[in-house]
Amino acid sequence: MATKDINVGVIGASGYTGSDLIRMLSGHPKIDLKYVSANNHAGQRVGEIYPYLNGKVDLFLEKWQDINWSVVDVIFSCLPHGIFHEIFPMLPAEKIIIDLSADFRLSSAKDYAQWYNFEHKSVETINHFVYGLTELNRSNIKKSEKVACPGCYPTATLLALYPLIADDLIDINHITIDAKSGISGAGRSPKRDLLFSEISESFRPYSVTGHRHIIEIEQQLMLHSKKDIKINFIPHLVPMNRGELVTSHVRLSKDIKLNEIIEIYQSKYRNDNFINIMSNGNVPNTINVRGTNNCDIAVIPGRVDKTLIIISAIDNLVKGSSGQAIQNMNLIHGWPEELGLHQISIFP
Amino acid sequence: MATKDINVGVIGASGYTGSDLIRMLSGHPKIDLKYVSANNHAGQRVGEIYPYLNGKVDLFLEKWQDINWSVVDVIFSCLPHGIFHEIFPMLPAEKIIIDLSADFRLSSAKDYAQWYNFEHKSVETINHFVYGLTELNRSNIKKSEKVACPGCYPTATLLALYPLIADDLIDINHITIDAKSGISGAGRSPKRDLLFSEISESFRPYSVTGHRHIIEIEQQLMLHSKKDIKINFIPHLVPMNRGELVTSHVRLSKDIKLNEIIEIYQSKYRNDNFINIMSNGNVPNTINVRGTNNCDIAVIPGRVDKTLIIISAIDNLVKGSSGQAIQNMNLIHGWPEELGLHQISIFP
Amino acid sequence: MATKDINVGVIGASGYTGSDLIRMLSGHPKIDLKYVSANNHAGQRVGEIYPYLNGKVDLFLEKWQDINWSVVDVIFSCLPHGIFHEIFPMLPAEKIIIDLSADFRLSSAKDYAQWYNFEHKSVETINHFVYGLTELNRSNIKKSEKVACPGCYPTATLLALYPLIADDLIDINHITIDAKSGISGAGRSPKRDLLFSEISESFRPYSVTGHRHIIEIEQQLMLHSKKDIKINFIPHLVPMNRGELVTSHVRLSKDIKLNEIIEIYQSKYRNDNFINIMSNGNVPNTINVRGTNNCDIAVIPGRVDKTLIIISAIDNLVKGSSGQAIQNMNLIHGWPEELGLHQISIFP
Amino acid sequence: MATKDINVGVIGASGYTGSDLIRMLSGHPKIDLKYVSANNHAGQRVGEIYPYLNGKVDLFLEKWQDINWSVVDVIFSCLPHGIFHEIFPMLPAEKIIIDLSADFRLSSAKDYAQWYNFEHKSVETINHFVYGLTELNRSNIKKSEKVACPGCYPTATLLALYPLIADDLIDINHITIDAKSGISGAGRSPKRDLLFSEISESFRPYSVTGHRHIIEIEQQLMLHSKKDIKINFIPHLVPMNRGELVTSHVRLSKDIKLNEIIEIYQSKYRNDNFINIMSNGNVPNTINVRGTNNCDIAVIPGRVDKTLIIISAIDNLVKGSSGQAIQNMNLIHGWPEELGLHQISIFP
Repeated sequence: MATKDINVGVIGASGYTGSDLIRMLSGHPKIDLKYVSANNHAGQRVGEIYPYLNGKVDLFLEKWQDINWSVVDVIFSCLPHGIFHEIFPMLPAEKIIIDLSADFRLSSAKDYAQWYNFEHKSVETINHFVYGLTELNRSNIKKSEKVACPGCYPTATLLALYPLIADDLIDINHITIDAKSGISGAGRSPKRDLLFSEISESFRPYSVTGHRHIIEIEQQLMLHSKKDIKINFIPHLVPMNRGELVTSHVRLSKDIKLNEIIEIYQSKYRNDNFINIMSNGNVPNTINVRGTNNCDIAVIPGRVDKTLIIISAIDNLVKGSSGQAIQNMNLIHGWPEELGLHQISIFP
Repeated sequence: MATKDINVGVIGASGYTGSDLIRMLSGHPKIDLKYVSANNHAGQRVGEIYPYLNGKVDLFLEKWQDINWSVVDVIFSCLPHGIFHEIFPMLPAEKIIIDLSADFRLSSAKDYAQWYNFEHKSVETINHFVYGLTELNRSNIKKSEKVACPGCYPTATLLALYPLIADDLIDINHITIDAKSGISGAGRSPKRDLLFSEISESFRPYSVTGHRHIIEIEQQLMLHSKKDIKINFIPHLVPMNRGELVTSHVRLSKDIKLNEIIEIYQSKYRNDNFINIMSNGNVPNTINVRGTNNCDIAVIPGRVDKTLIIISAIDNLVKGSSGQAIQNMNLIHGWPEELGLHQISIFP
Repeated sequence: MATKDINVGVIGASGYTGSDLIRMLSGHPKIDLKYVSANNHAGQRVGEIYPYLNGKVDLFLEKWQDINWSVVDVIFSCLPHGIFHEIFPMLPAEKIIIDLSADFRLSSAKDYAQWYNFEHKSVETINHFVYGLTELNRSNIKKSEKVACPGCYPTATLLALYPLIADDLIDINHITIDAKSGISGAGRSPKRDLLFSEISESFRPYSVTGHRHIIEIEQQLMLHSKKDIKINFIPHLVPMNRGELVTSHVRLSKDIKLNEIIEIYQSKYRNDNFINIMSNGNVPNTINVRGTNNCDIAVIPGRVDKTLIIISAIDNLVKGSSGQAIQNMNLIHGWPEELGLHQISIFP
Repeated sequence: MATKDINVGVIGASGYTGSDLIRMLSGHPKIDLKYVSANNHAGQRVGEIYPYLNGKVDLFLEKWQDINWSVVDVIFSCLPHGIFHEIFPMLPAEKIIIDLSADFRLSSAKDYAQWYNFEHKSVETINHFVYGLTELNRSNIKKSEKVACPGCYPTATLLALYPLIADDLIDINHITIDAKSGISGAGRSPKRDLLFSEISESFRPYSVTGHRHIIEIEQQLMLHSKKDIKINFIPHLVPMNRGELVTSHVRLSKDIKLNEIIEIYQSKYRNDNFINIMSNGNVPNTINVRGTNNCDIAVIPGRVDKTLIIISAIDNLVKGSSGQAIQNMNLIHGWPEELGLHQISIFP
């Protein structure tokens, strides 16, 4: 086997996001997955906590404090929100660091106090991180060495709204996001609410008084619109493993024909191979993006005059998390963004 | 066993709606389920097409033409849309007839041409039918002998919006309905799209260019508001058997506090035992209304000023269809509306 | 409402078994569900831990120590294995007590040390309890006041094998039980293995080195055969909520025709309304017994000479637990065994 | 992109097996997927019938009669049983042909009359095909150009039993196979029995009077044992998409220790990278082989003296069908058997 170009380490690998990152990194042609860390499972084989990786990934889990970072080029962190910001100062500052938590996504330390209920311990470095929604922030990510990858809902929502926001086509006072996610987004920690018997015949909203992704979406929309924006956002839990579908309901601020809008979408994303603007009456279905880094988007005229419904679907663990993280690594290294992300999903 | 008060016959009993009607009628203390018809299965036992009813319902399926209607007091029709209106003139006109299809729900014959793609064959009798959303039309149903039961989406949507519409509290130009339904709503006919392998990891919108329930919802909203109303309505398919959850996004037309709104809901539905206005941060979950005739409703303040999100959940086959039909039969006979509808769902 | 005949209390009500017992007791025409206990949830309403019972069961959970047992006629215990035997001596000895755990099912105290890993604290009273498999032990249960209800696997297995064992028709050295259960059998405690994402695409055996129900099955088989019996028993976990299907593979010990065997089954169970010996090529399906106290049984000739496959299906929470417990209460009181157990399952 | 070594065509590509074959072939480094045929869908893009392949496989479906076979090196057929044997004589005889149906698996034409209910139209060529269970027939496949790939149940069963049969370790009169399969094995044709609502809470046996895979298993066991063998075989349907788990219950014919048996398994499969003999108490779980060409096998001592339970798990569409077909293509071409089969499954 040819020598790989770079070495990679993953911190916080014991959740579904970590699992998916390992799965995709292990097939990446340019990188060598050198270290995998999960402090609670240090000493175990990866295959012990993820039996499906038995015989595929032959590594032991270690404590992150025990890793020899000197031979590592890129560090991915899949630690939960509120933990990575404490660890960050102890990591080697010169490395490329790609964080999949929320800890460096928001604008300021006080946002964390308000929305995440913790005091940020790396305040001065929040600005060192760029927001890692590749399609919307490519030029900044390319020249950065610290990336804060977006949340899954912000990814699907911002990709759906960006063309309209960027061209000032919608009334920013009437943005309604009705979001739906599979169960893997809720993590792998044992909770009664997530047991098979509680979920399999259940559909319900959650976090209706204010999901944490709201502030992230609003800050990015404001950045791209240069306007003050508040949104309504209601997430729901779907009894399936993977996938996220976001239905965005908006009002047009000017007269514009549907085909012109679709052309705007196609134009904005003309260089984005993972974005698929659907036509011919096709609509997104989570099963079609399962296991891929794709985002399928359909733009549908509302029945009410001057309204529009944009429907976007992603795999919450791939484009919504680990896949996008790899896309950003590729971008920083000047590799094709699709490298190691060509996987075809299994079906059914 | 004591003599039952009335005899009942069911036409079009071979689908999930018919099955659920039979299930509930067979436990109703006042009625005797006399005839069950499904022309394609005439001659078979009910237990042959519904093995779970084996030993519970001991009847043979017959052709509706072969039934001795003279001994029947109430006829339920579970025939698909576009069929009952052709059969209706051949049924005995003096009977109480409760139709679960769309064939007599809409205002005029031309609505059927436009939305259901068929020419209505009982035009002159459309007005003989009253709209069977019990909670909103009780006084008319009580004195009627022909009831057109609402669709499942209209039921959940109208129950959610009625208090706001009746008191003129919302901007009728900004009604956005984001609806989600379990698979049983799509029926029992074999279709590739409904196979387990196509559904179990899939979430998707459908009928995005105009679901047939839109006109039904609009006509009822107009009736109660005396205004011209158009709505946006997008339904989605959830990988579960039963249940429907509707998220209604609206804008308030006047300044009013949340607790006042909730009081209005509680007041409007104070005599409606099947309607549950939730409080203390509880939100609807389809699993909690599964198998029941209940509708759980939560009213949630939007983050955007003067917006409101109303979330309503029903069992699409019970309150959304067969349960409501029985509720109407009870109402017409002066029995308690809950009679035969006390079932507790199984869980899990 | 007419006065109920007796008062009932339930201990250990916070699991799926307790939930199902409450569901069925609340519809029982002869009993008043007076007390419900779950020490960890004392002070909460039943509807708080089981939202589907909101508005159906209006009781507060209490500590069992706080219950006024003097007004209670029957005590059901749904406590987990290894706990009830410690509490039993503190309950009023004269009451009818129906235990749904394993604590009084086995023959002797040492069985608990070996198979359940605890030292039995009510050794002298083990013999006071009768084994509550109604169809096989009716005469003893009828005159008893202490009943130990069978485990779910023993119920389905013993009902399948009893006619063959009782008539000495099979080779007792060749009994192979291949069992499959839905997830609810694993309980409601949060465990990673039971999360939706771990279960929904998984089928696997478990407890392959010796499931605890083996000794219970063997002891009952020995009782009815008067022979020493060991069996092979492998249980598997099915990604569904309810239901249990047991495939018993046996060898005939004499020449006997299939129709004679089926006649023996029909004869043995001729007075057992919950047992359904299938014919005409029909085979059990868990979905058809879901939510009911039924046991469907099919007897199938093996391809190998003189072999037989018996397939039995029950709802693990009903006939396999709470339903059978109620059936025993009915039997003890001289009521029809079916009282309060007529529920028709929902489908789908 | 480097030139591929060979061109491949697929016939009968519109089912789940065809889909999975396309998925895996499209990532194979040595082959160019040149033609894809499905006569009922001729003219459509692959992405139209398999939306998840949109943007991944850019081919049109054609009628097999229209394909230019001269440029094709290997032909895979995924046509249903009973069709390929009629088409075979019309295909170019000199090509490598790998059939995934049953049409050339059995010993003689009369087997098809008896077990598959059709008259074989290529009787004289049945013997030209070798049985494609790679691990058991490697030397014959390697030098063959016509391969009949095994059924999914025979694959999992024969891999489980082969070491015992080959070394004459079990009593051939006591082989009991209790098999369980996910729904995808039942195909993609719309059938009421396979609808989501009929399946999701259902577990049931099927084909209890004689599944067609019985004769295939028996013929192969006889081949390897040189003895006359009949087996009991009962398949069950599991409410999940993929995966198959076979529980084989056998009796040892001689005294041999468990660790010796496990060593025999390890030895027989020491060169078989897809076979995983489990140890340390681990047992197969379908979720761990999902999407892979692996077979996980555990050998468990029975409680009854001298009995053994062998549990084997595969993905029914991969090792049970399309993956094994590619493994055989690799073998014939002298490539590593794993080529193009390194996929890591997604989880969850």
